[in-house]
Amino acid sequence: MDFVSGLHTLCGAGEPRGRNGIAVHIFVCNTSMIDRCLYNSDGDFLIVPQQGKLLITTEFGKMLVEPNEICVIQQGMRFSVEVFGETRGYILEVYGAHFELPDLGPIGANGLANPRDFLVPVAWYEDRQVPGGYTVISKYQGKLFAAQQDYSPYNVVAWHGNYTPYKYHLEKFMVINAVAFDHADPSIFTVLTAKTTRAGVALADFVIFPPRWGVANNTFRPPYYHRNCMSEFMGLIKGHYEAKEEGFQPGGGSLHSMMTPHGPDADCFEKASKAKLEPERVADGTMAFMFESSLSLAVTKWGLQTSNRLDKNYYKCWEPLKSHFNPKCK
Amino acid sequence: MDFVSGLHTLCGAGEPRGRNGIAVHIFVCNTSMIDRCLYNSDGDFLIVPQQGKLLITTEFGKMLVEPNEICVIQQGMRFSVEVFGETRGYILEVYGAHFELPDLGPIGANGLANPRDFLVPVAWYEDRQVPGGYTVISKYQGKLFAAQQDYSPYNVVAWHGNYTPYKYHLEKFMVINAVAFDHADPSIFTVLTAKTTRAGVALADFVIFPPRWGVANNTFRPPYYHRNCMSEFMGLIKGHYEAKEEGFQPGGGSLHSMMTPHGPDADCFEKASKAKLEPERVADGTMAFMFESSLSLAVTKWGLQTSNRLDKNYYKCWEPLKSHFNPKCK
Amino acid sequence: MDFVSGLHTLCGAGEPRGRNGIAVHIFVCNTSMIDRCLYNSDGDFLIVPQQGKLLITTEFGKMLVEPNEICVIQQGMRFSVEVFGETRGYILEVYGAHFELPDLGPIGANGLANPRDFLVPVAWYEDRQVPGGYTVISKYQGKLFAAQQDYSPYNVVAWHGNYTPYKYHLEKFMVINAVAFDHADPSIFTVLTAKTTRAGVALADFVIFPPRWGVANNTFRPPYYHRNCMSEFMGLIKGHYEAKEEGFQPGGGSLHSMMTPHGPDADCFEKASKAKLEPERVADGTMAFMFESSLSLAVTKWGLQTSNRLDKNYYKCWEPLKSHFNPKCK
Amino acid sequence: MDFVSGLHTLCGAGEPRGRNGIAVHIFVCNTSMIDRCLYNSDGDFLIVPQQGKLLITTEFGKMLVEPNEICVIQQGMRFSVEVFGETRGYILEVYGAHFELPDLGPIGANGLANPRDFLVPVAWYEDRQVPGGYTVISKYQGKLFAAQQDYSPYNVVAWHGNYTPYKYHLEKFMVINAVAFDHADPSIFTVLTAKTTRAGVALADFVIFPPRWGVANNTFRPPYYHRNCMSEFMGLIKGHYEAKEEGFQPGGGSLHSMMTPHGPDADCFEKASKAKLEPERVADGTMAFMFESSLSLAVTKWGLQTSNRLDKNYYKCWEPLKSHFNPKCK
Amino acid sequence: MDFVSGLHTLCGAGEPRGRNGIAVHIFVCNTSMIDRCLYNSDGDFLIVPQQGKLLITTEFGKMLVEPNEICVIQQGMRFSVEVFGETRGYILEVYGAHFELPDLGPIGANGLANPRDFLVPVAWYEDRQVPGGYTVISKYQGKLFAAQQDYSPYNVVAWHGNYTPYKYHLEKFMVINAVAFDHADPSIFTVLTAKTTRAGVALADFVIFPPRWGVANNTFRPPYYHRNCMSEFMGLIKGHYEAKEEGFQPGGGSLHSMMTPHGPDADCFEKASKAKLEPERVADGTMAFMFESSLSLAVTKWGLQTSNRLDKNYYKCWEPLKSHFNPKCK
Amino acid sequence: MDFVSGLHTLCGAGEPRGRNGIAVHIFVCNTSMIDRCLYNSDGDFLIVPQQGKLLITTEFGKMLVEPNEICVIQQGMRFSVEVFGETRGYILEVYGAHFELPDLGPIGANGLANPRDFLVPVAWYEDRQVPGGYTVISKYQGKLFAAQQDYSPYNVVAWHGNYTPYKYHLEKFMVINAVAFDHADPSIFTVLTAKTTRAGVALADFVIFPPRWGVANNTFRPPYYHRNCMSEFMGLIKGHYEAKEEGFQPGGGSLHSMMTPHGPDADCFEKASKAKLEPERVADGTMAFMFESSLSLAVTKWGLQTSNRLDKNYYKCWEPLKSHFNPKCK
Repeated sequence: MDFVSGLHTLCGAGEPRGRNGIAVHIFVCNTSMIDRCLYNSDGDFLIVPQQGKLLITTEFGKMLVEPNEICVIQQGMRFSVEVFGETRGYILEVYGAHFELPDLGPIGANGLANPRDFLVPVAWYEDRQVPGGYTVISKYQGKLFAAQQDYSPYNVVAWHGNYTPYKYHLEKFMVINAVAFDHADPSIFTVLTAKTTRAGVALADFVIFPPRWGVANNTFRPPYYHRNCMSEFMGLIKGHYEAKEEGFQPGGGSLHSMMTPHGPDADCFEKASKAKLEPERVADGTMAFMFESSLSLAVTKWGLQTSNRLDKNYYKCWEPLKSHFNPKCK
Repeated sequence: MDFVSGLHTLCGAGEPRGRNGIAVHIFVCNTSMIDRCLYNSDGDFLIVPQQGKLLITTEFGKMLVEPNEICVIQQGMRFSVEVFGETRGYILEVYGAHFELPDLGPIGANGLANPRDFLVPVAWYEDRQVPGGYTVISKYQGKLFAAQQDYSPYNVVAWHGNYTPYKYHLEKFMVINAVAFDHADPSIFTVLTAKTTRAGVALADFVIFPPRWGVANNTFRPPYYHRNCMSEFMGLIKGHYEAKEEGFQPGGGSLHSMMTPHGPDADCFEKASKAKLEPERVADGTMAFMFESSLSLAVTKWGLQTSNRLDKNYYKCWEPLKSHFNPKCK
Repeated sequence: MDFVSGLHTLCGAGEPRGRNGIAVHIFVCNTSMIDRCLYNSDGDFLIVPQQGKLLITTEFGKMLVEPNEICVIQQGMRFSVEVFGETRGYILEVYGAHFELPDLGPIGANGLANPRDFLVPVAWYEDRQVPGGYTVISKYQGKLFAAQQDYSPYNVVAWHGNYTPYKYHLEKFMVINAVAFDHADPSIFTVLTAKTTRAGVALADFVIFPPRWGVANNTFRPPYYHRNCMSEFMGLIKGHYEAKEEGFQPGGGSLHSMMTPHGPDADCFEKASKAKLEPERVADGTMAFMFESSLSLAVTKWGLQTSNRLDKNYYKCWEPLKSHFNPKCK
Repeated sequence: MDFVSGLHTLCGAGEPRGRNGIAVHIFVCNTSMIDRCLYNSDGDFLIVPQQGKLLITTEFGKMLVEPNEICVIQQGMRFSVEVFGETRGYILEVYGAHFELPDLGPIGANGLANPRDFLVPVAWYEDRQVPGGYTVISKYQGKLFAAQQDYSPYNVVAWHGNYTPYKYHLEKFMVINAVAFDHADPSIFTVLTAKTTRAGVALADFVIFPPRWGVANNTFRPPYYHRNCMSEFMGLIKGHYEAKEEGFQPGGGSLHSMMTPHGPDADCFEKASKAKLEPERVADGTMAFMFESSLSLAVTKWGLQTSNRLDKNYYKCWEPLKSHFNPKCK
Repeated sequence: MDFVSGLHTLCGAGEPRGRNGIAVHIFVCNTSMIDRCLYNSDGDFLIVPQQGKLLITTEFGKMLVEPNEICVIQQGMRFSVEVFGETRGYILEVYGAHFELPDLGPIGANGLANPRDFLVPVAWYEDRQVPGGYTVISKYQGKLFAAQQDYSPYNVVAWHGNYTPYKYHLEKFMVINAVAFDHADPSIFTVLTAKTTRAGVALADFVIFPPRWGVANNTFRPPYYHRNCMSEFMGLIKGHYEAKEEGFQPGGGSLHSMMTPHGPDADCFEKASKAKLEPERVADGTMAFMFESSLSLAVTKWGLQTSNRLDKNYYKCWEPLKSHFNPKCK
Repeated sequence: MDFVSGLHTLCGAGEPRGRNGIAVHIFVCNTSMIDRCLYNSDGDFLIVPQQGKLLITTEFGKMLVEPNEICVIQQGMRFSVEVFGETRGYILEVYGAHFELPDLGPIGANGLANPRDFLVPVAWYEDRQVPGGYTVISKYQGKLFAAQQDYSPYNVVAWHGNYTPYKYHLEKFMVINAVAFDHADPSIFTVLTAKTTRAGVALADFVIFPPRWGVANNTFRPPYYHRNCMSEFMGLIKGHYEAKEEGFQPGGGSLHSMMTPHGPDADCFEKASKAKLEPERVADGTMAFMFESSLSLAVTKWGLQTSNRLDKNYYKCWEPLKSHFNPKCK
C-alpha cells in the first residue's frame, strides 16, 4: 500500500467544484510510489506525518519530512512519496484558498511560526525515460484519474517564484501565551491559516499545542470548557495531550462538532483544580494539533463504519465531573 | 496651579487643523479646578496620573483616577479636575482619531486589555447657578479660549451611547508574551491604539511594561537593541524600568527618536547576558509605559529649554558596552 | 405541541455545513417546554411571535417576548420557551452570519433601530437537579439530536460580553422616509441585517412596514411595481398590509421569488391613483414585515404540500389591473 | 470686477501641496470675463450662486447656473464666467479629493440627489484667434499665475469620459427624514461629499436644508443643540433659515467651529417648544446650505478684518435661552 | 427551433440558489421568437453570436448583435431574439455577480475594453394587445416556467439608470501586450469580468485573442505550456486559433480543466521554435475567446453524451511533441 | 565632495514629521565616503545613478550600482558610497511609505518589473576598530546630525527578513504597451510605486521610458498632449528622450507641475504626424525616467536660484506648434 492507495477521507464539508470547502484525510502506507505521482487538482494538502518519514519528490525538488514536521503541497504540484517502513499521518485539504501565516496583530513583526523557518526544496531533476510507463494520477473533483506517459515528470531543471511546496518543523514555533493570569484562546497557537473572505473567519486553521511554560497565576490552566463556533478535529503526533492524558493515542483523532460543549476530562479537571500554581513545563515530549474549521464537518461513511474504529465510549470521560457549585462562596 | 494652568507640551507632530497629529503633555498641579472646566476641541486626551489622585467631573459623571489607572477624555467633553495634594502625570493627545482596543489577531476573542475592564461614569448632575461666573475653557487649534456663563455645565441628567470618558486599571491587563524562547515585540503590550488609515501603522499606541513572568529559554530577555520606525516616548509611573534600572525616575520621560538605535544600558546587558534562565518575575512593583507614534516627534522649546530639566548625559549609559564579537564561535 | 415539536420549515437556500444560507420556519405551539431545551448548532434564530407571548429562558436570563417584539437567539445558546395558550410565529434562520444593525450611511449617527432599544437578559440561574432527566436538543446540520442530563442547563450564575440573546420592540423603530416626493426603497425599513461578504448584498434582512406618516407630493405612495434581485418572504403580525388589504392574514406568509414582478393589488392601485395627496397616517395598527434574502429560495415539500394551505388564487389579485397608457399625454 | 478679481477666501484648513484640505471662498462680480479664463490647479470648485446667473463656458461646453442650482468645476478645467448684473455666491474648494454622491446605505438604490439629475454640458467650441491676447489664469498652490496666448482655449470639438463639469438643481433633491418621531442628523441632507480615506469621515460635505414636510410626533422639530466633531460653514441662498429666522441674511455666512456648542436661537426654541405637532411644511421658499468639514477651519485675515463685516453680536441670539429644568418632572 | 428551444447547457459549477456559480450554454436556432420572451431569474447572460445576427428586443430597446460583437442581458430583463437564418452561438451565465470592466491597474485610465464602446439600446416600446396570448418564460432555479398574458411586455416608454443590456464590438478592444520580450498572461485580454469576493479571483472572465502585432524578441511567442488554477472554456468565432490551427473549428469548444496541463499543439511548437522573430501580425481574421472561471467545471450529460460531438482524439495533438532537453547547453 | 556633501534638494512637498511627503534630490561627487556613513531617519531613498558607478556598503552587504540600474536604501539603513570618478545621479525620497511593485491587475502574474530581478546584498561584515573616529550621519527631520564612534558600523554578520536594500537593472523591465492601436498611459511603465492610502493615488511612482517596439496603427505614437493630476519630474540617464530630442540632456531634469498642459515639442509633433506607421524600435539606447507624484511639488531656493541652471527658454519648444484645425474634415 502506497501513499495514494492508503489515503482515506474521514470528514469534510463543501466540495471542490465550488472552491469552498475542506477535507480531513488520513494515510497509511508501507510502500514507496514507484514510477507514479499524484497531483491534487482540487486543493492544497497540508500533510502531518505521525509515524515514519516521508521523502517527497516534487517538481521543485525533494523534501524529507519527519514526524513533528509538516509540509504543504499546493494545488497542481506533482509529487511522489517514498517511505521507509510503516508510515502514517493526517492530511488537511482546503479547496479555493491557500495556507498562509496569520496576521500577527499586536504580536508584532515576529512570533509564532516565523517565515524564515519554512523550508522550500532545492531544484532537482531527472531526464529519465520510463518505457514501461509512468502513471500520473490527478485527484479531480474528488476522484482519482490516471494518465500514462513514458518519461519522468520530474524534468524541471530550475524554477523561480513563491508557489512552491514547503515544510516546517513544529519545534521552531515561537510560542506565545498568558504570562500573568488567565488563559489565551487556542488561536494563539495557529501555525498556518486558510482564510475565507469573511474577516476573522478561517476556512481552516492548523493549530498546535507545543511544549511551553505554564505560569498563569490564579488561573485554571488546562483548556477551558467551551462551545466553539468552529469544528475541531484533533490529532496527536506523540506524547499525551494535556487535556486528556488517557485514551487519546498518537495517530488517533477526535472531532468536536460545532457548538457541542467539551473540555478537559474529569481527571484533568480534578488535578488542575488542586494544583499549586508555580511555573511548570506543559506538554514536554508531546505534540497534539488541531485542524479547526468554520465549516460544519460531516463524517464520511468510511470514517463512521468502514474504518471500524469508532470510540463509542468517548463521552464517558466527562461523566465523573461533579458540580462544585456553592451559592455561599463569592 | 490647577490642571489647566499646570499643563505643558513636551513634544508632538502634526497639528489639529489637519486632523492628523499627536502631542505629549505633562501636567503638575496642587489645586482643584473651581468653577471652571476644560474641553479639548482639538483631540482626545489619554491621561496617565503618576502622582496623586484625580477626581474628574465630566458631563457623564465622576471618575476617580489613581496612579496605575489611566483615563481617556474624548474631544469636546467638558471636565474639571479635583486634586488632593501634589499631583503629576502625563497626557497623550491625538488629533483626528480615537483610541480603541487593538485587533487581537491570533490572540483570539479575549486578552490584553479586555473590554469589560474599561469603566465609564454613572450619570451625575448638578443644577447649580454660579452668579460669580463659571469659566468654560476650550483648547482650540492649540490655544486656550475662555467663556463665562452663570451656571454649572454639569447639568446633564442622563445620557446614552458609547462616546463617553472611561478609565482603566493597568493591573487588569492580561499579559501575553513568549513562553518557550525568543522575545516578543513590545506591541504585545498595547493597551489602546489610535489608528491611521494605513493598515498596521498607528498614529499612537499606549503600551505598558507590566509585572509578569519571564520564562524564555536560550534568550536574552530584556528589550533587544533596535532602531524603530516609530518614535518612542517613555514614562514611568512607579518602580524601576527593567532596561534601565538607574537614572530613569518615576515622573520622568525619555524620547527615542525614529531610527535612532537604543536598548538596555550596559549594566542591564551584562546582568542579562550572564543570568541563569529560570522562570522569574519581571517588573514586579513597577509600571513603565510608552507613547509610541508613527510620526516623527519634534520637541517643544519648553521641553528643550524652559523646563530646564534635560538629562545631557543620557547617552553615556551605553558607553560602557563592549564588543563581544568572536569570529571563532559559531 | 411545544416550540420544538411545532417547528416547520417553509423555505430556504444554502445549507448549514457550508455556512452560507438561510431558512424560514414557522412555529405553532400551545405547551411550554418542560425540562427540555433547544440549541441551534447551525445558525441564529430571529423569532417573530405573531400570536401569544413567549417567555424564553436562556443561559443568559429570561426574556418575555410579545407580538410586535422580536428576539434573536444566536448559534449555540440553550433556550426553553414557555407559552400561555395558542402561540404562533415566524423564524428567520441564518447560517454563517450574525444579525447586525445596518450601516446607516447618510442617515447619520442615530435612526432606524437604535442600539439602546435592544434589550438583553439579566443573568438568572437555577441550581436544580432533574432526576427524571433533562433533555438537551441540538439542531445540527438540519436535524434534531437529543442528549440526557440530570440537571438544569440554566446554571450560569453570571456572564459578560456581547454574544447574548436580545429582544427589540418594533414600536421603537425610528422611521425614515420620503418627505418631499418620490418613494424610498423598502431597505429604508431595515431593522437588522445579516451580511454576505459582498458589499451591499444581504444574506438576509429583517424589514418592517411600521406605522408612519405618508406625505410625498406628486407621488404614487404604495409600494411600486417591481422585480427584485432578492427573494421576499412577507408576514403579517397584525392589521392589514398596505399594499394588499384583503386576503393577506395575520400569521400568513407570501413568497415573491427573485425577479418575479409584483406590486399592489388592483384595489390598492385604483385607490392610490386617485387619492388626494395630503399628509396621512399609513399602517396605523398594522405590522407587516419581510425576510428579504439575496438567495433564491426553494420551498420545502412541507410548505408546498403537507401544510395544505397554499393560496392557489393569489395571482388573481393583479388580474383586474388595466392598462392606462395614453400615447397622447406627456 | 469679474469672477476672478472678485474672489476672496474666508476660511480653510490644510493646503494644496499636500493634497488634503479645503477652502471656503466667496465671489462678488458685475462684469463678465472677456478673453480670459481660469483653471484651478489646486482642487475642485463647488460653486453656489446666491444672486445673479452664471453663464459658464468650459472646455466641455456651456452651463447656465442660476441661484438654487450649484455646479462643480473640477481641477484643471478651464472656464470663463459671464454675468448679467450684480452677482454673488459661495465656493467650496477641496484639495486631493473629488465630490461624489454619498453611499446611500439602507436608503437603497435611489434617493437624495439622484444621478440622473446631474447635468453635464454639451460639447461647444470656437476656432477663434485673439490677436490682442487671451489670458489663461491658473490658481496654483494658492496663488494666481497668468499666461498669454493668441487664441481661445475653447477649441475642444468633442469629448468623452466622465471627468466633466456638472450642475444640479437643488429642487431635484429627494428629501428623506423622520416620519414617525425623533430628528434625523443633517447628514440626511447630503447632496455631495468629498471623502477622506477614513471611513465615515468627510473632507467636506455639501448639505442643504430644503423645503419638506415636518411630521415627527412627540419631537422638538428644529435642529437640536449640539457640539459637532466637524466644522460647519452655513450660507443662505434665499428665504429664512429655520433655526434662526432673524439676522441670518441671504448671502451671509456663519461658521460654527468644531466642538463649540450651538443650536436654534431663543425665539426658535420657544416657538418650537410650544408648537402643536401637526404635519407642516418646513422651509418653503428657503434654501440654506452647509459646507461641513472634518477639518478644523481657520479664518483668513480677510475674513476676520479686511471684509469688515463680522457680526460681533451673533452669540447674543442664545442669551435669552432659559433653564427649564424641573427635577420633579419625569 | 428558436433561441429558447435551441439552448443547451454544456458545463458549469455552483447553482443559482446559492448565488455562486456559472454555466456555459450553446444555442442554435433558425426561427425568431414570436409573441414570446425570456427572462433569466438566475443570473446574467453574456451572449457570443458565432453565426447569424441576433436582433434582440428588450424592455430597454432593440440591439442588433452580429458575430464579432457580444451582448450582455442581465438578470430579470425580458428579451426576444429575432434571427435571419441558421444562427449559433455561446452563452456564459453567471449567478450572483455582474460583469464589469477589470480594474486596469498600471494600464491606466484607458485601455482594453473602453467604457465608451459599450452601446446600450435606445428606448423603444409597443402598445400591442396579443389576444392569442403572449408567453413570458422565466429561467428560474435552472428550469423554464411559462406564463401567459394578453399584451406585449415591451411597453416600457422610457427608462433611466445603468442596469441595462449592452453590446460591444470586439474590434474595439485596445490590445495591450509585450513589446520588448516575454509573454503576457492571457488576462491581459480580459474584456469583462465577474468578480468573486476574493481579490484577484474571478467567478468568470470573458477573454479574447484579437488581431494584434507580435513583436517580442528572444521569446517563444505562442501561449506557453501551463497548468491553470482556473478552468478554461474556449470557443472560436472565426478564423484559426493561433495555438491550434487545425481541428479547432468556429462554433466548436474546448474545456481545459483546472490543473490539467496544456499548450500549443506539436505543429505550433515546431513552427514557433524556429520562427524568425520579426514583428508580425497575429490572429488577423480570427477571433477566439475564453470563458475562464475560478470554479472547477463539471460537464453535463448533454455535453458528454447527448450532443454526440465529443472529440475523443483531442489529446493526440500533443503526442508528437519531443523532448529537446540537452544537459550540455546553458 | 562625497555623496553626502554633494546632495542637494530640488523640489518636494509634505514633510517628514507628518510622514506624508516626497523630496527630489540630486547628488554629484568625486570622492568616496571614508570612515563615515549615512542613514536616513526620514524616509526611503530611491537612487538613480546617471554617471559613474556607486559601490554601496550597507549593513546588509555591498551593492555595485551602475547607470541604468537603480537601488533603494530604506529608512534607517546605514550606508557608505564609494565612487570611481565624476559621479552624478538623482534621488527620489518618500516619507511614510515604502516602494513596492504595482498591483498588476489584468497584466497577470508576471510582467513589468518582475520580483526575481530585484537583487539584495549578500551579508558582509568587518570587525574593524577606527581609533580616529567613525562618523555616523543621520538625516533627521530634514537636517543632518553626526555622531562619533570608534568602530565600523558594518559589523552585522548575518541577517534575515525582507527589509533590505535592493537594486534593479532597468533592462530587465518587461515592457507592455499597445499592440493594435491607441496609446497607453505612462503608468504602464511603472517600475515601483509608493502608495498613499487612497486607492489608485500614488505618493510617488518611479516610471521609465525603456527601449521597445512601437507598432500602433492609426495612432499618434509619441506621448500625447495632456494636463496631469500628478506632478512630473523627469530625468534622463542616457540617450535622447523621445518627446524632446534636443535640449533635454542626460543628467538634466524637468518639472511639469500639476495641471500645466504639456506634450511633445513642435519637431516631434511634425515628425510623428507624418510618419509611416510601421513597427519601429522606440528609445533604443535611451533611458528617460519620471518621478511622478500626486503631491503638488514646490521647488527649493537652491533649485530655482543657487543652482543657477534654470532653462528660461524651455516653454519656447512649443511655440512653433500650429493649429491644424479644419472644420471641413471629419
